[in-house]
Amino acid sequence: MTRSVKMPASYPAIVENRGGKGRAILVCEHASKAIPPRWGDLGLTAAQREAHIAWDIGALGLARGLERRLDAVLVHAPVSRLVYDCNRAPDQPGAIAERSEMHQIPGNTALDAAERAERTESVYLPFHEGLHAEITRRIALGLSPVLVTIHSFTPQWHGRPRDLEFGIIHDADDRLARAVLAGVAPTGLRAALNQPYAASDDVTHTLKLHALPYGLPNVMLELRNDLIATPEAQEAMADRLAPALAAALTAGAHEMAG
Amino acid sequence: MTRSVKMPASYPAIVENRGGKGRAILVCEHASKAIPPRWGDLGLTAAQREAHIAWDIGALGLARGLERRLDAVLVHAPVSRLVYDCNRAPDQPGAIAERSEMHQIPGNTALDAAERAERTESVYLPFHEGLHAEITRRIALGLSPVLVTIHSFTPQWHGRPRDLEFGIIHDADDRLARAVLAGVAPTGLRAALNQPYAASDDVTHTLKLHALPYGLPNVMLELRNDLIATPEAQEAMADRLAPALAAALTAGAHEMAG
Repeated sequence: MTRSVKMPASYPAIVENRGGKGRAILVCEHASKAIPPRWGDLGLTAAQREAHIAWDIGALGLARGLERRLDAVLVHAPVSRLVYDCNRAPDQPGAIAERSEMHQIPGNTALDAAERAERTESVYLPFHEGLHAEITRRIALGLSPVLVTIHSFTPQWHGRPRDLEFGIIHDADDRLARAVLAGVAPTGLRAALNQPYAASDDVTHTLKLHALPYGLPNVMLELRNDLIATPEAQEAMADRLAPALAAALTAGAHEMAG
Repeated sequence: MTRSVKMPASYPAIVENRGGKGRAILVCEHASKAIPPRWGDLGLTAAQREAHIAWDIGALGLARGLERRLDAVLVHAPVSRLVYDCNRAPDQPGAIAERSEMHQIPGNTALDAAERAERTESVYLPFHEGLHAEITRRIALGLSPVLVTIHSFTPQWHGRPRDLEFGIIHDADDRLARAVLAGVAPTGLRAALNQPYAASDDVTHTLKLHALPYGLPNVMLELRNDLIATPEAQEAMADRLAPALAAALTAGAHEMAG
């Protein structure tokens, strides 16, 4: 008796500049707005599938600019967070959001456990396996890696403008976040610690999963997306941020040896 | 121009009773004394390669006995800790030990970074990827898993006998450890919390890596290996321990919903 076995698709992490010699491992969980065909359009309009609910606008371009300036490795996810948000554990409500900001997501409503497990296996797991492999390889090679996740946020929230330009977010280990904050003045950005989100908003899953168990210094960076909307703006922002990050890594190198 | 690329070997985690309906995910990082041929005998005698420095004697048999009684899934490593100790991060000295108890391990002496990275990629990474896949699948399916690692320790330590029979060890989350301790009396075992090792001895890497980021209740169990030296003794010990573990999972189910 033969049976056809349904093999789940797999969307591996994309790794760029794997040979980079800098300490930073840059991570972009929300790099992509791509929705693979098996999930159709999730019941959303084309405009919704281009918007912030699908991805962090500008984050990947900024991350690539930082990658080149810091000789960092960059790990990013190839699938939209509308399918699975790789910065959420499988039991967090935001992992497969039924609602994001004001938008209902019909294709994510009333999923059964098997569908949740399939998305976890297809999107979440291969992304984190790829990132885990890169982290552990660098630890084993004695490269003292640090983890920096790159995100963007909307200039308006429920109709109100946000003054913040640069958020620096930490989980239980605040060493790198405080080092970045200490060096932020030359960037000229309006910056704050744990704004516009904080660990209590469940936004630090990647830091918990990959940095804390290994004692790696880590931070989550949030840029207001109107400041990184074009390739030119992303390059300009990378120019402003790279020296501050480099200084934070150097200044903290002794304390942050792990 | 063609180049031959050396592909590292890969020794995946072994998963038994994957369809088990119990909450417990049993883990045995030190299940095997096997040294794959590429690492030869590591410069050790046959007697050394059979001893506790190579594996946790009796742990896998006990874990299998518990697996059947709790309908648990069991994940274990197929390679001796002499090659790579899967319960250690790649930068911990015990990951590839140059010395264990009184024994020098010639094949682990003065390794270069590339060899450390290759062992990490071949042994550590596939074990933890397999365990991670099983954990996240069960979380996504809504099965509320808990993590229980099974170890054994020697009846003598540097020549002195140990009275302890059963150690119950926790990391930052002590919920399940305290629930097991509370139910230990019916087993008749001489038990203690955080003996013969504790988190400060760097023995809780698996708990940190897989349980804490997901908020899963977790505990590391250590049995004195003279009590589980034969298949019959392992079965008898599983009979003694299974009701205590089942009670801890039930008693704590409400508090430990995650």
